[in-house]
Amino acid sequence: MLDKKYLYTPGPTPIPPQVTAAMARPMIGHRGQEFAGLHGEIVEKAKVIFQTTNDLYVLTTSGTGGLETAIANTVTPGDRVLALVTGNFGERFAKLASTYGGLVTKLEFPWGTTINMEQVDEVWKAKGPFKLVLATHNETSTGVTNDIAALGEYFANTESLLLVDAVSSMGAMDIRTDEWHVDIMVTGSQKALMLPPGLALISVSPKAWPIIEANSGVRFYFSLLEARKSFDQCNTPWTPAVALFYGLDAALDLILAEGLDNVFQRHARMAAAVRAGARALGLGLLADDSVASHTVTAVLPDLDIGTDTLSKILQEDMGVMFAGGQGQLRGRLLRIGHMGYCSELDVLMAIAALEMALYKAGIAIDLGAGVKAAEALLCIPEA
Amino acid sequence: MLDKKYLYTPGPTPIPPQVTAAMARPMIGHRGQEFAGLHGEIVEKAKVIFQTTNDLYVLTTSGTGGLETAIANTVTPGDRVLALVTGNFGERFAKLASTYGGLVTKLEFPWGTTINMEQVDEVWKAKGPFKLVLATHNETSTGVTNDIAALGEYFANTESLLLVDAVSSMGAMDIRTDEWHVDIMVTGSQKALMLPPGLALISVSPKAWPIIEANSGVRFYFSLLEARKSFDQCNTPWTPAVALFYGLDAALDLILAEGLDNVFQRHARMAAAVRAGARALGLGLLADDSVASHTVTAVLPDLDIGTDTLSKILQEDMGVMFAGGQGQLRGRLLRIGHMGYCSELDVLMAIAALEMALYKAGIAIDLGAGVKAAEALLCIPEA
Repeated sequence: MLDKKYLYTPGPTPIPPQVTAAMARPMIGHRGQEFAGLHGEIVEKAKVIFQTTNDLYVLTTSGTGGLETAIANTVTPGDRVLALVTGNFGERFAKLASTYGGLVTKLEFPWGTTINMEQVDEVWKAKGPFKLVLATHNETSTGVTNDIAALGEYFANTESLLLVDAVSSMGAMDIRTDEWHVDIMVTGSQKALMLPPGLALISVSPKAWPIIEANSGVRFYFSLLEARKSFDQCNTPWTPAVALFYGLDAALDLILAEGLDNVFQRHARMAAAVRAGARALGLGLLADDSVASHTVTAVLPDLDIGTDTLSKILQEDMGVMFAGGQGQLRGRLLRIGHMGYCSELDVLMAIAALEMALYKAGIAIDLGAGVKAAEALLCIPEA
Repeated sequence: MLDKKYLYTPGPTPIPPQVTAAMARPMIGHRGQEFAGLHGEIVEKAKVIFQTTNDLYVLTTSGTGGLETAIANTVTPGDRVLALVTGNFGERFAKLASTYGGLVTKLEFPWGTTINMEQVDEVWKAKGPFKLVLATHNETSTGVTNDIAALGEYFANTESLLLVDAVSSMGAMDIRTDEWHVDIMVTGSQKALMLPPGLALISVSPKAWPIIEANSGVRFYFSLLEARKSFDQCNTPWTPAVALFYGLDAALDLILAEGLDNVFQRHARMAAAVRAGARALGLGLLADDSVASHTVTAVLPDLDIGTDTLSKILQEDMGVMFAGGQGQLRGRLLRIGHMGYCSELDVLMAIAALEMALYKAGIAIDLGAGVKAAEALLCIPEA
């Protein structure tokens, strides 16, 4: 078989050649003016995508490192934390807070559903206040998007800080950091930002700074105070991943050149097309349309064969990589990523691969039905 | 729209990342041992793909330069040449022979059909002998493949040299240079060899060398005698395109790693899938199945709208590039390339794009029907 791979995992995602080329630029010292200029420009562009005027830092770490930065700088042992958990990454955020000594109240929602504001209100009234509220914007493990605007509105007039994981949605979905009153927003490089893994981006609100300044927890590499101090000279406290910064600059240029609204609309259409395709093949979908993620779709085939069999056919016969289920959904889900350097045509290819894998696995499906349904949806002119 | 392109022209073709990476290796002097070693290995690998033990040279020029090399070294003004023309590239080969002073007898076959051996026999008997016979293996302008084996058998016991243009098929189709008695075989880098344009490969039989040695036409850069002399030291007479040589080495490795039979079968299946898809959409095909190229398919939509309208939608709405018709078929053909770094899934994407373009152009088609037919064909296990 031709050695050609098609990456549809919800991170990492395909890298545009413009980004790969940028990353191949000659190395420069990270304490010089050239890096400072690059760094400053990157932060300004990233703020456009975060829709924020807050401070923003680019950290040389993974998305999890970005979340740890959020926690390490705000959780002092004994602090009361409300963790809103809608899946595996919500779990991880909660675990980070516990690790740093937070007294975590976990409010869990069934996998595939979203944060329910009535329950949040009940918990707040029964057990609040909390110093920190943790939420996931786009839960990668289940393919749902939580309504951060509603959360932000609820907590805006409280003392609580709202910390949001937007690792798998920033750069693909309309995320209004400031309008939604998000105090700390975190994303990673290897998702909709179209980069290899290795960078996290984090924004910090004026409301969050006094908490960070007063924090007495252990932190060194992840210190936001150090990040702020260094950024006064457009510098970073520790050695930055310079090639990834080059790539990030190029990726942000691509996003801004396409236009944020166009980027958001493309992702919405891709998600709708995948869902239409899966439905036409008779496959279940974990999330309801109303809360479905625009960047990752969790297909619940509910077949006699496990998803591992399908994944094996997809990979070995076609070079196609989807993700499987995590945690309680291991072996039952196929998660199809459609974000970043992914077009409507790429989504049709993913559906074609899926239906051929089902057919090859002996499942009685109407070959071509998935693509047909997705094409029909994509042929509707953009709004 | 996302800035992402899908290249389905019958050359240039997409470049594998392994090849791009190889081309980025540091430059080396082309008169040193390292280049000589690389060059020697490339030629040995290329001979496997040419299925030849003849001499073989890698020229820094385009495919047309490779064809000119074939002509410039064999045509002495006044030589009698039989040019078998099945399309635009057959025309070009004939024109090259005229340009070098050959007395060319053109035997033309209707576009979309192949060389008819009975007519060849008639012309030979009526007007032969000819010093040179020119043929195109795979006519890129019409998507037909000529039976070079039959031609070779016919001319093997004559004094004629058989010169074959395999620019758009070498590395994708089963081409038996020696078994088919081809004296000079030419290909280019930007087709099934998965490289950017810039190199031509040419093989020369023992029967051809005395003709080349006796040739008194004008040639300098394209001299095969110079190429042979330099190759005695694994060198090239003039400066070679070193980065393309790096890339060629990597591309040949990919082809040999996949296995020639697998490569040939993949291309045959891709061609069959495109044809099944086009037929299911009610579109005409220029070539009969029995002579259809495995690397490029000429679709003859025969619609009220011109192919330019479809090409515009494909490019502007989807980033998809097909080729149009050439010469007498300008404005009437869509030529879909499916060669080299192209998989069965890529072909499904091409068909999906085509049917969406037709739909968007207002043509009454059964959306999804093309992909369905192609998928059905591709789900048949390989022989």
